[in-house]
Amino acid sequence: MNDASNAYDVIIIGGGPAGLSAGIYTARSSLRSLLIERGAIGGQIVNTGLVENYPGVKGPVGGFEITQVMYEQATGFGLVTTYADVSGITVEDKNKIVRTAEGNFTAPVVIIASGSERQKLGVPGEAEYAGKGVSYCATCDGAFFRDKVVAVVGGGNAALTEALELTHFASRIILIHRRNEFRGLAVLAEKARATGKVDFLLDTVIDEIIGDRFVTGLKVTNVKTGEQQVIPVAGLFVAIGFRPNTGYLQGTVALDEQGAVIVDNRMATNVSGIFAAGDIRSGSIRQVIAAAGDGAVAAVNAGRYLQE
Amino acid sequence: MNDASNAYDVIIIGGGPAGLSAGIYTARSSLRSLLIERGAIGGQIVNTGLVENYPGVKGPVGGFEITQVMYEQATGFGLVTTYADVSGITVEDKNKIVRTAEGNFTAPVVIIASGSERQKLGVPGEAEYAGKGVSYCATCDGAFFRDKVVAVVGGGNAALTEALELTHFASRIILIHRRNEFRGLAVLAEKARATGKVDFLLDTVIDEIIGDRFVTGLKVTNVKTGEQQVIPVAGLFVAIGFRPNTGYLQGTVALDEQGAVIVDNRMATNVSGIFAAGDIRSGSIRQVIAAAGDGAVAAVNAGRYLQE
Repeated sequence: MNDASNAYDVIIIGGGPAGLSAGIYTARSSLRSLLIERGAIGGQIVNTGLVENYPGVKGPVGGFEITQVMYEQATGFGLVTTYADVSGITVEDKNKIVRTAEGNFTAPVVIIASGSERQKLGVPGEAEYAGKGVSYCATCDGAFFRDKVVAVVGGGNAALTEALELTHFASRIILIHRRNEFRGLAVLAEKARATGKVDFLLDTVIDEIIGDRFVTGLKVTNVKTGEQQVIPVAGLFVAIGFRPNTGYLQGTVALDEQGAVIVDNRMATNVSGIFAAGDIRSGSIRQVIAAAGDGAVAAVNAGRYLQE
Repeated sequence: MNDASNAYDVIIIGGGPAGLSAGIYTARSSLRSLLIERGAIGGQIVNTGLVENYPGVKGPVGGFEITQVMYEQATGFGLVTTYADVSGITVEDKNKIVRTAEGNFTAPVVIIASGSERQKLGVPGEAEYAGKGVSYCATCDGAFFRDKVVAVVGGGNAALTEALELTHFASRIILIHRRNEFRGLAVLAEKARATGKVDFLLDTVIDEIIGDRFVTGLKVTNVKTGEQQVIPVAGLFVAIGFRPNTGYLQGTVALDEQGAVIVDNRMATNVSGIFAAGDIRSGSIRQVIAAAGDGAVAAVNAGRYLQE
C-alpha cells in the first residue's frame, strides 16, 4: 500500500507533547502532516499525577489536560492523526517510507517522537499507586513531598541524583538498592551521605507497595538475611532506568549508548530529513515543556529543510 | 559589592520565556535563584500581537498573558528578581561574578537568557503598527494573513524564507529589497519565483507604513528612478536580521558568527557552569515554546552540574 493518499509532507511518529507540538507547528505552516500513534494520544504525562511546572499553565493541572489542549490545537490547524504501530523507516534518497501494520506512509520529512519507557519495578501496588505516591521523576514530583519520608529505589546515577534532588523537599530519604554497593558516581553517593538526610538500605528488594488512598509503606526483604519488614514512607521514586522506544530505528539513525536518538541543537539526526524530539532524543531531560520545545524546534527546522 | 546576600546558586540573565522557565525549574528545585532583567519582565513576546501556537495554551492569547503566568509560577516557587543591566561575567574557577551597575552577584551557575533584538526598519508607522500588520516572524503570524496581500522586506535568506513560508497563507507576497539582487541562496529565490505568488520589488526602499487601525499600505521609493508609489498591503514582514544581545559576553563564552551563544543539546556553553537558553543561543527558532523548553533544559542540567 503506497498510494498518493498516504503521501505527506511530514510524518510525526508519536502523540505525546513532542509530537503534538511538532504537529501544531507543521500543520499551522500548511504542511500536510500525519501523526502516527500506537497507543493513546497524550504520551506518558497522561499517567502522571499533577503538573505545576509547565511554564505558562497555572497548575496544578492534570497532564492529560495539557496534552488535550495540544491535541485540539494541532488538529485544529489540520494535523491528521492515525493509530498504528511503526515497524520501521526506509530511506529512499529524499523520500522516507514509514512502515506500519496498517500500511506504508511516505514523506520527505519524519519527526521521531515516540518517547521512552520508564523501567517498571514490577511489584504489586506499583500501577495502583502511580501518581498517588509512586513517581518516576523527582524533578516533576519532589515538591509534592515536602517534609515527608520517601524512598528511592535504584543503584545507578539516576537513583543517587533523584535522592539528592529530594533532599530539597523530603525530611528523610531511604535509598533502597538490591546490591550492597552503587554503580553510580562515588561523588554522588558521598554527597548523598553528607546531606545527613539519606539512609542507605542495601541488599534489599521491594516486595510490595502498600497504602490506602496514597502510599503508606513498602514491604521489603533483605536478600542476604531473608529478613522482612514494612517501612513507612509517603512516596516511592522508582529510578531504575529508561528505555528509549527506538527498537524500530536500529540501523536507520545514529543512537547513543542508552539507545536514544543522537540530535544536534536543531533536533536533526544524522539522516537528512529525519528529526527527533522529546524523551527519545539524546540528552532529554524528560519534561513536558522540553519535549514541546523540541517538537517546535524539529518542526521549524523540518520546514526549512523542505524549502531548500 | 560582593557580600553574602548577593550570593546565589543560580543567576539567570534575562526575564523572557527562557529565563522565566529556567527560574521555574531552579526555584522549584529549591536552588537559590536570582533573575536579573534590564527592562520589563516578559521579553519580546509581550510586544507581539496574539499567540495561538504555544502548545498547551488555547489561543489566541496575548503574549503578555503567557509570560505573566510564567512569572507568577517562578516567583511562587521562590525565584528572586531584580532590575539591572549586566555589564559582564567574570569566571573565577567554579564561581561566576555577574557585574552590574547595581553591584555584583555571584553564583556557581549562570544561565544566559537575554534574548536577541530584531533589527527594526526605522520608518514611520513601524512602532505604531507592530502587531497590527507589522510582524517580524512569518512562523508566528503568517496564519493571520490568509488570502491577503502582504509584503516582506529584506535581502537575505531570512527574507526569502519568510516569503516562502507566507506562500502557504497569503494570496500574494511582494518581496521588497533595496538592492537589485539577493544575498540569499539562489535556490530559495528560484523557489519563491516558482510559486508564482511572489512579486519582486527591487531597488526599492520603504518610506512609511500607512494604515487605519491596521496596516493598509506602504509608501515606497525606487532608489534608481526616484519614483514613489503607494502599494496596498495588509501586512509587512520585516526580515532584516536579528542581533543576539551578547555584547557583554565577548570573550566570556564562545559565540557563533551571528553572535549567538554556542550550546550543545543540553544548553551548555563552552564554559563549565554557564548555560544559555532561548533566542540568544545558536540555532534558536525564536519561538516562545522553544525558549521555554530551552530554559527548562538549561535549568535541569544546571542542577546536575551543581550536584557533581
